[in-house]
Amino acid sequence: MIKSVFYHAGCPVCVSAEHDIISLIGKDNVEIVHLAEEKNRVAEAEAKGVKSVPALVTPNGNVLHINFGASMADVKG
Amino acid sequence: MIKSVFYHAGCPVCVSAEHDIISLIGKDNVEIVHLAEEKNRVAEAEAKGVKSVPALVTPNGNVLHINFGASMADVKG
Repeated sequence: MIKSVFYHAGCPVCVSAEHDIISLIGKDNVEIVHLAEEKNRVAEAEAKGVKSVPALVTPNGNVLHINFGASMADVKG
Repeated sequence: MIKSVFYHAGCPVCVSAEHDIISLIGKDNVEIVHLAEEKNRVAEAEAKGVKSVPALVTPNGNVLHINFGASMADVKG
């Protein structure tokens, strides 16, 4: 099974959402990517349609923007 | 186990997110509430902190606003 990918940037909103998502779908079913620590994956996230973090990209490629922590411009800045 | 509750109002963004959430966490783990058809549950959703739909309220009471379909004002209007 292709995993979902949860992109975040370490903000409080992100951490809270990360806990919720892991609780809901199970940590084995989601890859957690911290964009502030893995800057080389910012382009990958943007290519998938991530506009802000936290965001969950589902196995079928849909992007679920969950609440609002920071824009991708903030993440890159 | 307490179920999550997914509130929506039938908008295209809502329907897409509903499919994703059911796929991710399983339909037996989430109650789907269509606020445009169940207006009597709007107050319940607002009391839980739902500001817009679609939104998922987790078993521990956190509100995850997923993308943006409509504000609660639109739902009530």
